[in-house]
Amino acid sequence: MLGFPASFNGLSNQLITRGKITLSHSKPPDSSSTDGTGSMFPSILTRYGQIIQESLISSIPSSQLELFSPLRYHMGWETPIGEHIQNPSNQGKSLRSALCLFASEALNGDWKQSIPAAVAIDLIHNFSLIHDDIQDGDITRRNMPTLWYVWGHNKAILAGNVMHALAYKTALTLVNKGISHKKAMDTSRLLAESSLSMIRGQCLDLNFEKVTEISVEQYLEMIRLKTGTLIACSLEIGALLASANHIQMRRFSEYGGHIGKLFQIRDDVLGIWGDSKKTGKATANDIRRKKKSLPIVYAFNKAKGQALISLNRIYQKESVTEIEVEEVLNILDQLEAQQFASSLVAHEAELAMKTIQNSNIQPWALIEAQELIEFLVLREY
Amino acid sequence: MLGFPASFNGLSNQLITRGKITLSHSKPPDSSSTDGTGSMFPSILTRYGQIIQESLISSIPSSQLELFSPLRYHMGWETPIGEHIQNPSNQGKSLRSALCLFASEALNGDWKQSIPAAVAIDLIHNFSLIHDDIQDGDITRRNMPTLWYVWGHNKAILAGNVMHALAYKTALTLVNKGISHKKAMDTSRLLAESSLSMIRGQCLDLNFEKVTEISVEQYLEMIRLKTGTLIACSLEIGALLASANHIQMRRFSEYGGHIGKLFQIRDDVLGIWGDSKKTGKATANDIRRKKKSLPIVYAFNKAKGQALISLNRIYQKESVTEIEVEEVLNILDQLEAQQFASSLVAHEAELAMKTIQNSNIQPWALIEAQELIEFLVLREY
Repeated sequence: MLGFPASFNGLSNQLITRGKITLSHSKPPDSSSTDGTGSMFPSILTRYGQIIQESLISSIPSSQLELFSPLRYHMGWETPIGEHIQNPSNQGKSLRSALCLFASEALNGDWKQSIPAAVAIDLIHNFSLIHDDIQDGDITRRNMPTLWYVWGHNKAILAGNVMHALAYKTALTLVNKGISHKKAMDTSRLLAESSLSMIRGQCLDLNFEKVTEISVEQYLEMIRLKTGTLIACSLEIGALLASANHIQMRRFSEYGGHIGKLFQIRDDVLGIWGDSKKTGKATANDIRRKKKSLPIVYAFNKAKGQALISLNRIYQKESVTEIEVEEVLNILDQLEAQQFASSLVAHEAELAMKTIQNSNIQPWALIEAQELIEFLVLREY
Repeated sequence: MLGFPASFNGLSNQLITRGKITLSHSKPPDSSSTDGTGSMFPSILTRYGQIIQESLISSIPSSQLELFSPLRYHMGWETPIGEHIQNPSNQGKSLRSALCLFASEALNGDWKQSIPAAVAIDLIHNFSLIHDDIQDGDITRRNMPTLWYVWGHNKAILAGNVMHALAYKTALTLVNKGISHKKAMDTSRLLAESSLSMIRGQCLDLNFEKVTEISVEQYLEMIRLKTGTLIACSLEIGALLASANHIQMRRFSEYGGHIGKLFQIRDDVLGIWGDSKKTGKATANDIRRKKKSLPIVYAFNKAKGQALISLNRIYQKESVTEIEVEEVLNILDQLEAQQFASSLVAHEAELAMKTIQNSNIQPWALIEAQELIEFLVLREY
């Protein structure tokens, strides 16, 4: 076990395969240990899963006050009428929280001290999802009706705000875990700053809905802000709490930035070409929703003649027919939009690999950080 | 000058009248030194006005990013197209910020150290106003179109979220003023907790829209949460930063709770019987908006026979005619609803007076705290 983190010792039900470690008991309940392509579910996402869920549950008051019930529903723990769900299958994967704890552990910190920060990040992420769903008019998330669809816009705005305030309240409890007041404050500051960047990304995203002339660079800047900064912040905070070494904090943050971008672009690919059995969403769903994801942005930039006329016509319409969905899929095919998006995923993966290799972390942590990249590049759901 | 706070010394343009101090240069630009009834504008609201405005302006980035422009508009500093307004007449009164600084000064603290906290509280208050206006569908605030009415719901949700995140970011800058990390953190915690109470009040308020059977007690609990907790928190934080004496913090918080309630009930009275020339809103505006303010809640509880039938009929309608507004005004008159509301204002004023008298603050501060109560009880706008 030499070279593996202390927290691994004493855990009985370990499964070590090809240098990859999966703890079957802490595996997210809605996933198997393989993703269907034979690749293992990465250790970073499994090892902290259970403790993150337990800590998240504690961070949202179990009070019967009407204020908190929609939050528990959104997290997948309760039905809309407040009935407890025994084995929730619709909760999030807590990627951001896991990355925060991983960064702390990779730098030899006591990762359990970082739990309140990991939870706070997850709450910020979920606050943004609740408000995003209102803005996008999305009616399902994780196979369930969205919060606003159940409670209406007004209550959903409040629920997001409650989640937002709870995030800051939770971050401050770091001091109860032995973290200094200074570090707890720096955590709050990083949270607030990355939230502002995230909201800036949401603002750009809203603007993109109304225009078709978006360059690939503009799109990448939008996802850097909307998705990348909070993921980067998760790793930066984890590093801060473990070591406060600024060079390491920056490297982890950079690694997170690349992870965030590749995660989002892979999401864009799955939103169009994903297997509905694996994603839980219909194939070409993002075309039906007229979402300006990377393949579409690319196509608008590359298309000429009849293809461009068709794209303009279809994306100006109120709703899209199935024949038009096929038309867009054909145009994307001709322009090799999927290959383009996948090449960007591969590019970000390469940058993430290089960054983490230069970070001087222990071998086990390097393996896990690389394993996560591979998983995110290949994931099919 | 003995017995007056240090900050008063060296200021040349003081006007001392009947134990009341008004600094003409720091008077809010949109108010005269009297409120029209001959009563002086209270020192607490004038003394800190200018520095609060300057600090608020610094707290919102002057960046040309689209994210911050709606915030500067909401604060009354810019037109919707980003033109600077020279002498803004539509900015808020910053009651909460002023109370925070007053509490610090009244307890012999260096009140300038508390400025970031005062600003953070104002940002929390304004975040709630931006989202409130969306929820209530209000199209004007401070004589200007509301933020959502100019930028749409989606951008307004984001603008509120930006204001919310900026509040926490600003509170953390207390350490740059020499405040300890511990106190800065306690400030953030109080901010988060009172925001949660405020949102709980907003949630109750939303529920009240759909029902007519609200008891006066339920209504008072709602305004305690929605309006009272943030005002109480302002004073509590001011006391914390100056002295951290828990008994004094509690007394200031209690004083704030009473101030908050009387402020809101007086608002309810003005929303129905206010002089439109002074309030800037049409008389009986709250009846036209079918707002369930205290006089209406009281009337629903007291009315019998034909009056109750009329109220039920009118408050179930989509919109209210001018004849129906008159009808409601007559019912309120018969039930002496204005007298009832005013008696509650007087009751809260008495409790506020008693609380502050027991707080062992310096005579000048006691006079100012009492002066503020008198002003809020009598204010006509």
